[in-house]
Amino acid sequence: MPTVSRFDQRAADQLRPLRIRRDFQIHPAGSVLFECGATRVICAVTIADGVPRWMREQNIPGGWLTGEYQMLPTATAQRTQRESTRTGPSGRSQEIQRLIGRSLRAVMDLGKIGARTIQVDCDVIDADGGTRCASVTGACVALELALRKLFLAGNLSEWPLRERVAAVSVGIVNGEALLDLCYAEDAEAEVDMNVVMTAGGRFIEVQGTAEKAPFSQAQMDRMLSLARQGLAQLFEAQTKALD
Amino acid sequence: MPTVSRFDQRAADQLRPLRIRRDFQIHPAGSVLFECGATRVICAVTIADGVPRWMREQNIPGGWLTGEYQMLPTATAQRTQRESTRTGPSGRSQEIQRLIGRSLRAVMDLGKIGARTIQVDCDVIDADGGTRCASVTGACVALELALRKLFLAGNLSEWPLRERVAAVSVGIVNGEALLDLCYAEDAEAEVDMNVVMTAGGRFIEVQGTAEKAPFSQAQMDRMLSLARQGLAQLFEAQTKALD
Amino acid sequence: MPTVSRFDQRAADQLRPLRIRRDFQIHPAGSVLFECGATRVICAVTIADGVPRWMREQNIPGGWLTGEYQMLPTATAQRTQRESTRTGPSGRSQEIQRLIGRSLRAVMDLGKIGARTIQVDCDVIDADGGTRCASVTGACVALELALRKLFLAGNLSEWPLRERVAAVSVGIVNGEALLDLCYAEDAEAEVDMNVVMTAGGRFIEVQGTAEKAPFSQAQMDRMLSLARQGLAQLFEAQTKALD
Amino acid sequence: MPTVSRFDQRAADQLRPLRIRRDFQIHPAGSVLFECGATRVICAVTIADGVPRWMREQNIPGGWLTGEYQMLPTATAQRTQRESTRTGPSGRSQEIQRLIGRSLRAVMDLGKIGARTIQVDCDVIDADGGTRCASVTGACVALELALRKLFLAGNLSEWPLRERVAAVSVGIVNGEALLDLCYAEDAEAEVDMNVVMTAGGRFIEVQGTAEKAPFSQAQMDRMLSLARQGLAQLFEAQTKALD
Amino acid sequence: MPTVSRFDQRAADQLRPLRIRRDFQIHPAGSVLFECGATRVICAVTIADGVPRWMREQNIPGGWLTGEYQMLPTATAQRTQRESTRTGPSGRSQEIQRLIGRSLRAVMDLGKIGARTIQVDCDVIDADGGTRCASVTGACVALELALRKLFLAGNLSEWPLRERVAAVSVGIVNGEALLDLCYAEDAEAEVDMNVVMTAGGRFIEVQGTAEKAPFSQAQMDRMLSLARQGLAQLFEAQTKALD
Amino acid sequence: MPTVSRFDQRAADQLRPLRIRRDFQIHPAGSVLFECGATRVICAVTIADGVPRWMREQNIPGGWLTGEYQMLPTATAQRTQRESTRTGPSGRSQEIQRLIGRSLRAVMDLGKIGARTIQVDCDVIDADGGTRCASVTGACVALELALRKLFLAGNLSEWPLRERVAAVSVGIVNGEALLDLCYAEDAEAEVDMNVVMTAGGRFIEVQGTAEKAPFSQAQMDRMLSLARQGLAQLFEAQTKALD
Repeated sequence: MPTVSRFDQRAADQLRPLRIRRDFQIHPAGSVLFECGATRVICAVTIADGVPRWMREQNIPGGWLTGEYQMLPTATAQRTQRESTRTGPSGRSQEIQRLIGRSLRAVMDLGKIGARTIQVDCDVIDADGGTRCASVTGACVALELALRKLFLAGNLSEWPLRERVAAVSVGIVNGEALLDLCYAEDAEAEVDMNVVMTAGGRFIEVQGTAEKAPFSQAQMDRMLSLARQGLAQLFEAQTKALD
Repeated sequence: MPTVSRFDQRAADQLRPLRIRRDFQIHPAGSVLFECGATRVICAVTIADGVPRWMREQNIPGGWLTGEYQMLPTATAQRTQRESTRTGPSGRSQEIQRLIGRSLRAVMDLGKIGARTIQVDCDVIDADGGTRCASVTGACVALELALRKLFLAGNLSEWPLRERVAAVSVGIVNGEALLDLCYAEDAEAEVDMNVVMTAGGRFIEVQGTAEKAPFSQAQMDRMLSLARQGLAQLFEAQTKALD
Repeated sequence: MPTVSRFDQRAADQLRPLRIRRDFQIHPAGSVLFECGATRVICAVTIADGVPRWMREQNIPGGWLTGEYQMLPTATAQRTQRESTRTGPSGRSQEIQRLIGRSLRAVMDLGKIGARTIQVDCDVIDADGGTRCASVTGACVALELALRKLFLAGNLSEWPLRERVAAVSVGIVNGEALLDLCYAEDAEAEVDMNVVMTAGGRFIEVQGTAEKAPFSQAQMDRMLSLARQGLAQLFEAQTKALD
Repeated sequence: MPTVSRFDQRAADQLRPLRIRRDFQIHPAGSVLFECGATRVICAVTIADGVPRWMREQNIPGGWLTGEYQMLPTATAQRTQRESTRTGPSGRSQEIQRLIGRSLRAVMDLGKIGARTIQVDCDVIDADGGTRCASVTGACVALELALRKLFLAGNLSEWPLRERVAAVSVGIVNGEALLDLCYAEDAEAEVDMNVVMTAGGRFIEVQGTAEKAPFSQAQMDRMLSLARQGLAQLFEAQTKALD
Repeated sequence: MPTVSRFDQRAADQLRPLRIRRDFQIHPAGSVLFECGATRVICAVTIADGVPRWMREQNIPGGWLTGEYQMLPTATAQRTQRESTRTGPSGRSQEIQRLIGRSLRAVMDLGKIGARTIQVDCDVIDADGGTRCASVTGACVALELALRKLFLAGNLSEWPLRERVAAVSVGIVNGEALLDLCYAEDAEAEVDMNVVMTAGGRFIEVQGTAEKAPFSQAQMDRMLSLARQGLAQLFEAQTKALD
Repeated sequence: MPTVSRFDQRAADQLRPLRIRRDFQIHPAGSVLFECGATRVICAVTIADGVPRWMREQNIPGGWLTGEYQMLPTATAQRTQRESTRTGPSGRSQEIQRLIGRSLRAVMDLGKIGARTIQVDCDVIDADGGTRCASVTGACVALELALRKLFLAGNLSEWPLRERVAAVSVGIVNGEALLDLCYAEDAEAEVDMNVVMTAGGRFIEVQGTAEKAPFSQAQMDRMLSLARQGLAQLFEAQTKALD
């Protein structure tokens, strides 16, 4: 591992401190405050009867899961405009909520939840980089909490969550591959990559983007290796929070 | 005081437990988590240079203060649709954010903050009645925290906050006047009244509404008296939080 | 009564000249041109079969009443932007139309109109202060005209309007309490209060707001007393128009 | 002239009763209530300093004139949805307001009004066919009233209105050409044509549309001849109103 | 014919070169690339089961036809803003799509297509004047291609297209009547007229507009005569394309 | 290479037939019709003076490049709703246009184009899978054409395009890695991956998504290898088109 000087003195392969607080809100079936360093996201899961119109119209059996993502306007260093004062969520928010939905659907057996819709809400209170990955990782915990309630109430005949899912960011900063970028690192990064993976070690999503400088195959391999290290710790933290 | 049986066993003239947590978020100049029973609101204050276009165009000296209010979709017992997926904030949200802005402007000497805009964001995490009053009361604390920073940095020559402001709800439920209605009481109330008052005991806003049954002068007098009792405790809690 | 010099030489407790013209439009079931000084509002009531979706879905029996409010762009001294060129009605318009709906519902027994929706439209032709109060007072007349038609046609078994409703503004201008503020007075007022009352003398809505200076209990009492005087004359004018 | 039986017993070449009421509103520079049978339109003209951004950016000298058109929701037999509750004016309203603007600009010498914008607002109170033509004809009177004020105040060095403009509808109903269609005739018409003309007898706009059956050259000639007859009377009514 | 010097050396009564390319797209039932000089429009016709809600609610038998029109942002000399980044199609686009729909409905016997909706899409690739006329003329060819498929598949018992329809622009430029204006001529024209006609020689739509100078009856007659000449050639080109 | 039976009999590592037609539109500086099998995209590049407001406000030197993407409603087997009739582009379109912009910016030296904005428009005429990759690959050609014009006109002192960029899709279908998925393959794919690469062989973007089944490291390696093969051919086709 090459020496690298990070903003918060972390090693290149070190995650920020994690904290998962269960039952943060009073109403939703599953609710978690997920903290990764200074990034904090409220993840909430609501389960309602019924499925979207397109499923009914095409007679698709089983249920559905969909995500929404938003940042509080004061979650960022410069206050951002509240999305409700614009016309609909920004392109960035839509992209992230599609990612959240896809990632969780990939580990769910939606045929086993009946004609129900699972709504996942990720609301960022403090943003310091990695909010989309924090959303996926925290939402997985909130989802399991909500499914447990449904299951314990006798409303599910089979357990629908195949395995857990988590996500982490990696990147190239000043030529160096780093794990779990904070905002200041992300802003400087030549390459930014988000990796969503199952607990079993298979990929659900790999999104690598070079805005400043294209990256080589070797750099990609190094980033994926760091991601695997970080994800192992995230799965551990999920397990501890859910016990 | 007539005996009354409240959902949470409170006396008719009793507030729910209060908690004011300072510096809840990392970025905004002033930030507070205000809790009143199960109602929880994040109040954040950001101060930016510049004033709105209408002030510049009319050469109005001094600064401005404006509020925004939103509930997380999972703040309510039934998940509500996220406002950003609709076209702009709902009528209810707009009404509340106008109230927040007016209430705080009424105690500010905006001529003393220079050409700055104070943005007050109130985001409801858990809603159990009284969210608009909680927003005003919490925002006043966040505002003072933000102004202190500005003042200590030498950016204000005079202290611009004339006095503190707080708000409380009262109502008539089953013919009885009650202080600080929780959601279940509010849903049953014949009359709902919000009272915004200065620490000096004068009214900033009195909004009494009868959807189910009109109310008499005597009932109004009783509600205002309860409101004064509750407000005295709210001003105390603000003082303690700010010391 | 202290001497006060009003823009139009009225006494502090004097209403502006009232005029209620019935059947102003040709199509709606009830239609009134309500004039109070230079403020002129067209109030129209349409009654349609069916109720809103939320009532059907919750199997709520009876009917519904809803209001809409808008100003012609040329109703004001400075032309205002037409609301249809923006995205939806302004926050102010929404606040007023909620007030109109609440005020009229408070005197209606909606269980007696069957599965019908009463639509109240208030369109301001000329605005010189007090347009929301003029809307409520005029709309009550238009509502009674429309209900009479329905009743005479044998479509109602019981009369659904419990009592009439009217509204008036009061305020504090230069420290003096005044009845029925015109625009110039309203713009200078320290306190603005709208009072909606039933013919029987009970409150439906009390909305007192201090943007410039908080107000005392004594000032509130004085405003409410002026409001009662003005409302008595408004109920008389309604009676005359409806005979 | 073939015999024809019209809804209101008019001859095929007869206009409905006309009435032009000046100064209907208190604020706008020019204001007219234009009535043609049961069709009633408020036409208002406001003149403001400044020109639209596209004129400034292209350094186009002189002024601009633009129109807006809207129907009260209760102007029609079936209440129509208020445009401000939709996203922007309907296609029909936009088409009409473009017509109003073009028609009045065609008789204005905009170079003579300086860097001003003339805003023409046409708001339909009662609609019984021919509202776009009534809007143009009434707006021309309101425009002249507003320009006179500007001229008398010494703010115009030259008179900018070259000649007056008026508009009328004609159509083919049951094979018969008719002047000034009311709503019931318009709904049955095979062909609907709007003719906008200058007082000097030249065309500004000819819009003939066949939704039900194409029309021949002979039918077009007959319609244009009827239109000329009606327009002569409209110009007379304008003259009388403006004297 | 007076001598006139046109941008592209055409005679006053000469159309630009025409080209109709069938089956331009792979998916729609009928698809045409229509070229008239440098103006190029993709016209596509889709036929779907079902009719709009308003037809179902009023139990109107038969089918419906509706049009949509849009320009690629790069179809014009100055790139135009993409309509999807604004709120809905512009007023101009709406006006044109209403024209396309009306023109094609006027030659269709919609009672013969059953409960189907014909969707006509006109997308302008290159705009050099006359795009709305090109859209109508090209769409008629695409419509016939789509109807043939439906007919050959045995899904229509009677042929529903009564006759063909085409459209052409004419105008007055520097006092001279010209056929088929290109953009540069259109921008200079005193009068612009669009004529939609059936193959049988009757009018469906005549839209003559004078923004710069009103026009006389003689000028209108001259323009209509030129239009008939151009339309004859357009009907020939349609016939050739469809053989 | 395992045997695989593709819809169009291609080998697993075979691209669909390519065609790049230059100067497809008349107005934009660079314009290309890019065809890859049945997928056809118009790529147009416009270069305008000036930069976005956020660059001016932050005094960022150099220029900017941004992309827009849209499908004709008739580009798909089932007609899709036109985006301009909704509120803004769909989330999918926004995601794609962000990808187009990022990909081209990654190979541009924007400091060398001065204060200009390059607008890239990708409009899909026929969609049969891979439209976002076709957009990037075609847009790169259109961009070079537009830059050449600017360069030849003497408006650029240095050549700003560092190297070319192209994109291709790969995926896992029935467990088999395939190159350049058509729509039918894409709909069945377990994994879909888009790879954007420079001519020099470095990655700009790797987006791999598993909706149906997570994928292993070995599968990712196989997909990347196929992508490299396809990209080599795409760079060749670009070179040929640009010579």
